[in-house]
Amino acid sequence: MDPVIVLVRPQLGQNIGRAARAMLNFGLTEMRLVTPRDGWPNPDAGPSASGADVVLEQAKLFATVAEAIADCRHVFASTVRRRDLVMPVLGPEQMAEQIRASAGRSAILFGAERSGLETEEVALANAIVTVPINPEFGSLNLAQAVILLAYEWSRRAGLAQPPAKELESPAPHAEVEGLIGQLDAELEQKGYFHPPSRTQSTRNTIRTIFTKTGWSSREVKAVRGIIRALVDPPRRRG
Amino acid sequence: MDPVIVLVRPQLGQNIGRAARAMLNFGLTEMRLVTPRDGWPNPDAGPSASGADVVLEQAKLFATVAEAIADCRHVFASTVRRRDLVMPVLGPEQMAEQIRASAGRSAILFGAERSGLETEEVALANAIVTVPINPEFGSLNLAQAVILLAYEWSRRAGLAQPPAKELESPAPHAEVEGLIGQLDAELEQKGYFHPPSRTQSTRNTIRTIFTKTGWSSREVKAVRGIIRALVDPPRRRG
Repeated sequence: MDPVIVLVRPQLGQNIGRAARAMLNFGLTEMRLVTPRDGWPNPDAGPSASGADVVLEQAKLFATVAEAIADCRHVFASTVRRRDLVMPVLGPEQMAEQIRASAGRSAILFGAERSGLETEEVALANAIVTVPINPEFGSLNLAQAVILLAYEWSRRAGLAQPPAKELESPAPHAEVEGLIGQLDAELEQKGYFHPPSRTQSTRNTIRTIFTKTGWSSREVKAVRGIIRALVDPPRRRG
Repeated sequence: MDPVIVLVRPQLGQNIGRAARAMLNFGLTEMRLVTPRDGWPNPDAGPSASGADVVLEQAKLFATVAEAIADCRHVFASTVRRRDLVMPVLGPEQMAEQIRASAGRSAILFGAERSGLETEEVALANAIVTVPINPEFGSLNLAQAVILLAYEWSRRAGLAQPPAKELESPAPHAEVEGLIGQLDAELEQKGYFHPPSRTQSTRNTIRTIFTKTGWSSREVKAVRGIIRALVDPPRRRG
């Protein structure tokens, strides 16, 4: 079940819009807002949502974090700051796995842009989720934190399967042999294999070079056409 | 080795700054810019980098994508649009694994905010990398695309995998370009690019065919010798 994204005391409508866009990028649509600084709805949110208006329109407003997560069985608090709380700290991947494995609704809490979540709010969660970032440069903005966790969720959820390879399969060996044979004959013509003592090793080199390409049948044909063009006298083609 | 982030024709300085911040969040520091719309340096970049100024200060400016990736052995083009290019399409995870496994420098190309990468620019890459997003809502902004791929890289980089044993590492991109340039010139000579309407797609096909080979510097040299031999009149050689 897709997790709910809970923005706690978000300051800028712009960032609420960006978060909505980040959510929808990875198929998340349920946003909950806890006392946004400038109230709700916020005219600044729409433009920066770049089309993710559906998320904003359905966003629900709450007075406290406790109310916002009342129906959630698993709650994760996104934070980078150290807390003197004894609770599990997970990476995004582990969080996604736990959401996946758990029955019922999950929620991910994100704090205000500057201040983040209050310790009391973090304490409401079952676990802390922390995106491992550069220790010398530890600042993720709200929308970035949302998109990274949404991305991590979506790959677990199956949305993020790598796209089908558009690669053509390599040509059968015989076709590569045909290409090498053609090339060999043309080079023989040109007196390329010289001196005779080097001929065999030169042929071996050519074979390895053209065998390793992984060219498809189409590509082998194209290269054979290129070789023909190169040895033809000008203009004969086209 | 950490990948280079190449922003191609970025429009807003703000987005360059956000991309820099996203990079540094996950330990990436080498940014390259190809003809940013508003020139470089751009006063709007600093503020939105939120402290990632070191990335902006070290950013290098280039006139073309080819120059920006000249020293890179593995190039990935970040794009969501379908292309009529036959090249591998990877997810972020696969990309990170390939960067990890490969010797030498890698680069990830990001296109302009609105228009993205030109097909000719994508054709310069060894593979397309696509973040699998919600098919009904397919819009990632520049900084978000950068942070997702940087995040994916950083999680791989954490795992201490030994670099793959490559007998010879692939030639730097500039050497492959040299080969393609030579071939292109010779084929032009022969009137191979005909009719004119098909010329560009034919050039793209040739580029993808020779970019995917993974040929080493030595092999590129050998193939260039072969091309010379094919166009030379008989006997001239040896």
